[in-house]
Amino acid sequence: MEQLFIIKIGGQVIDQPAALALFLQDFANIPGKKILVHGGGKLATTVAEAMGIRQQMIDGRRITDAETLKVVTMVYAGYINKNLVAALQGNGCNAIGLTGSDANGILAEKRIHPTVDFGFVGDIRSVNVDFFQSLLQAGLSIVMAPITHDHKGQLLNTNADTIAQELAKALSSQYEVDLIYCFEKAGVLRDVQDNNSLITKINPADFESLKTQQIISAGMLPKLENAFAAVHAGVKKVIIGNYAELQLLVQQRAGTTITHE
Amino acid sequence: MEQLFIIKIGGQVIDQPAALALFLQDFANIPGKKILVHGGGKLATTVAEAMGIRQQMIDGRRITDAETLKVVTMVYAGYINKNLVAALQGNGCNAIGLTGSDANGILAEKRIHPTVDFGFVGDIRSVNVDFFQSLLQAGLSIVMAPITHDHKGQLLNTNADTIAQELAKALSSQYEVDLIYCFEKAGVLRDVQDNNSLITKINPADFESLKTQQIISAGMLPKLENAFAAVHAGVKKVIIGNYAELQLLVQQRAGTTITHE
Repeated sequence: MEQLFIIKIGGQVIDQPAALALFLQDFANIPGKKILVHGGGKLATTVAEAMGIRQQMIDGRRITDAETLKVVTMVYAGYINKNLVAALQGNGCNAIGLTGSDANGILAEKRIHPTVDFGFVGDIRSVNVDFFQSLLQAGLSIVMAPITHDHKGQLLNTNADTIAQELAKALSSQYEVDLIYCFEKAGVLRDVQDNNSLITKINPADFESLKTQQIISAGMLPKLENAFAAVHAGVKKVIIGNYAELQLLVQQRAGTTITHE
Repeated sequence: MEQLFIIKIGGQVIDQPAALALFLQDFANIPGKKILVHGGGKLATTVAEAMGIRQQMIDGRRITDAETLKVVTMVYAGYINKNLVAALQGNGCNAIGLTGSDANGILAEKRIHPTVDFGFVGDIRSVNVDFFQSLLQAGLSIVMAPITHDHKGQLLNTNADTIAQELAKALSSQYEVDLIYCFEKAGVLRDVQDNNSLITKINPADFESLKTQQIISAGMLPKLENAFAAVHAGVKKVIIGNYAELQLLVQQRAGTTITHE
């Protein structure tokens, strides 16, 4: 099977124009098939504040009310997505920017929770593999905004990490998928304060042992659980590393690699 | 050749949720291949005002400075485009929302004017016919936001009427194109105040005669000049009419039809 890179970036790099420009150059230079999934940045907060929309939090979790959905649709699907596409085009990468509503690419369902109303938050139900495959086969690189829909006319806000993971799982039926999560650290660290304490490889046995030794930080634990879920569902490997090292990450020469064996 | 409808809507209908819902139902029900090109609405002004961005006008023409481009990219390519796509999906129409930067669909060049700096305004240079054709052949209906790019990394603001016209001209090599401009009037009127004074058909000879009699309003004149330019460039017909009558417009049973003969 042909290789496919699915790469997720978050707000840290989106908010740093110089770092973002370098990252996009590196992304454009990856040969073959690739998908970029992006989160938001500070602009969503800036726009919400300017429009007098207050962020609602319940138990530390952001609530997507109608006004917040409006802002994230503008900022994620509009400003960030299209600027990433234009920049990639400028780097010779034939990119197309999409949300899950486009061509019904990612179908979701509004989250129903027994006690908390998260608002317009979507949990993914299905990925339109044929559609994504047809674009990739046409030589296009896909840029995905973290917005989905319910096929009944409603847009929904969906976590970018989850979108990357579900795309990777679904497209593993057609491609050998490497799923790369880029963030500001070198990868999974033995000591969160020390970038030199990188753990280069974690298999399920290593993971159990690291958990027992309580070496995995609270923030990293769900990321690794998700990474193993992806690997168990057919994704070839998950790589977690620094966005500044994308060239090395795709060659598996940096970051932490999570595999089945 | 197979028929293709290219339909343009402006801000009037976008700002009226009930009218928009009916319009989108009618659009979804058009059988066969179709493209919807949309302009903006009041939201761009609301967001710009909230963010303290002042609209610059020179000689009655809007200037797209960097901050204004940011707002229109958010509102047109993000909020409006994706809400139209989600609504069409909810009506059973498999829509995909795009700007000209996506897949390099519409390449433009920043307007250079001897005396006025219009800012980030793009004049269209080329349309990627193969790309649009591949989507239409896959059964997708395309929703175009009035944003293009220069292929050097810069997004540009391009008039929605012009996008509709250039798409219609370019795609006439592959389809029999009907280009429909929807607005709040019944079509081209002999008396702008009287919706019953509709002119149902205008050919080049009629147009000369109407101009001589000074029956065409100043606002309608450039629209008709553009319509004839499209028809001369291979578009089968241009229809100008009321968005509430879309079902009749596609059947050529309402509005003003502009043709070659």
